[in-house]
Amino acid sequence: MRNIKIVIEYDGTRYKGWQRLGDSDNTIQHKIEAVLSKMAEENIEITASGRTDAGVHASNQVANFRTDSTMPTHKMRSYCYEFLPEDIVIKSVEEVDLNFHARYNAKVKKYIYNICNNKVHDVFTRKYDYHVPLPLNIEKMRKAAEVLVGEHDFQSFTTLKTKKKSTIRTIYTINIINDDGNIEISVQGNGFMKNMVRIIVGTLVEVGLGERDANEISDILDRKERKYAGHIAPAKGLFLEEVNY
Amino acid sequence: MRNIKIVIEYDGTRYKGWQRLGDSDNTIQHKIEAVLSKMAEENIEITASGRTDAGVHASNQVANFRTDSTMPTHKMRSYCYEFLPEDIVIKSVEEVDLNFHARYNAKVKKYIYNICNNKVHDVFTRKYDYHVPLPLNIEKMRKAAEVLVGEHDFQSFTTLKTKKKSTIRTIYTINIINDDGNIEISVQGNGFMKNMVRIIVGTLVEVGLGERDANEISDILDRKERKYAGHIAPAKGLFLEEVNY
Repeated sequence: MRNIKIVIEYDGTRYKGWQRLGDSDNTIQHKIEAVLSKMAEENIEITASGRTDAGVHASNQVANFRTDSTMPTHKMRSYCYEFLPEDIVIKSVEEVDLNFHARYNAKVKKYIYNICNNKVHDVFTRKYDYHVPLPLNIEKMRKAAEVLVGEHDFQSFTTLKTKKKSTIRTIYTINIINDDGNIEISVQGNGFMKNMVRIIVGTLVEVGLGERDANEISDILDRKERKYAGHIAPAKGLFLEEVNY
Repeated sequence: MRNIKIVIEYDGTRYKGWQRLGDSDNTIQHKIEAVLSKMAEENIEITASGRTDAGVHASNQVANFRTDSTMPTHKMRSYCYEFLPEDIVIKSVEEVDLNFHARYNAKVKKYIYNICNNKVHDVFTRKYDYHVPLPLNIEKMRKAAEVLVGEHDFQSFTTLKTKKKSTIRTIYTINIINDDGNIEISVQGNGFMKNMVRIIVGTLVEVGLGERDANEISDILDRKERKYAGHIAPAKGLFLEEVNY
């Protein structure tokens, strides 16, 4: 038995997210499992570092699977490159310790969110960013972001319904770069709940537009209810950038 | 009567090129004319700096049209932004001298061609570049490109069939930049014939792969027959970047 770690890049535009949803085959996980199972001539199940929602992209999603196949890892990579659709690429394949688990062992995750803050939406990036045509005040957004950094209960910033599990997470950094209207927000943390990054971005955008004050953020955290935070920024601007173990 | 100059950005992926082809409505020119005609309440015909083929993109195509409409130019821009499909954007609208003609007055054109020269094709750029998975020798490509710069008969580098018109053109510069496997070839010249940039790129790629010698280029020019030059690089990597008047 071998344990194989894979790093995956995908364009989420036409998929219903990472995971199998009911009967849908149109998920990234399903596409990869179908190819790997054919390759290994056995039923392969893969475990990712976490799900990504419908329309969300990944530059470096990490997953692992167990197999009895003796195929060398470089051949696995080229097999997958040949048979996967062109919007899903397995960038690396590596044999790892049997204990490695892509979800449980993930320590730090980094997401990137792209905003096009020009009047006119760039035709070449429009599938990969959120168009905000009105001017954003980046300094105010940075001020609001600072409040979110640290260990907090992020219940106001998730659509997760469960009351059983902890909603406490730690955000290590939020960086906002503005390159001539192309704004990149990168968020690093020890874990993210459903829609958490997108609600953070939506809230920061409302601060940037002047619809909210940066000082409201600690109040939103304290209230621990989804309705106090901002809107959910669109899926297409979000990229899972890095998972560290 | 006013003469209006427009600068257009378009993603050519789903169009049959700039110009009307027989009965096809699926051209960029047709889409723009339909919106402008509705806006101006008269039949508008636009003239571009030149055609782009099916699948070719433009960052700054230039065109002009005449109209009796008195609508301010900034309102024309926002009208078009609202009613054009999201892969065609009119970036600027400006009233110009009645003599201005987008094709006849074009002095210098610049095209950019993108190549992905990594083993694995980037999923996010795959619609906008040519994937060449084998290593390219950029120095040899630059050496070959130097031979093309200047005034030459480019008959070997076009699929244009006419024998009546001159096939002499001047290329001012060809720059090749390699940013970690993302190769950008920019070509500036006084005019380009059908498929000329794509055949230049295809030929340079063959030189970069070692399939041809850089010294062959002057011979290819001398022979003045299409069959001596290299393959036509795919449309999707080509962008009309700039037109100068």
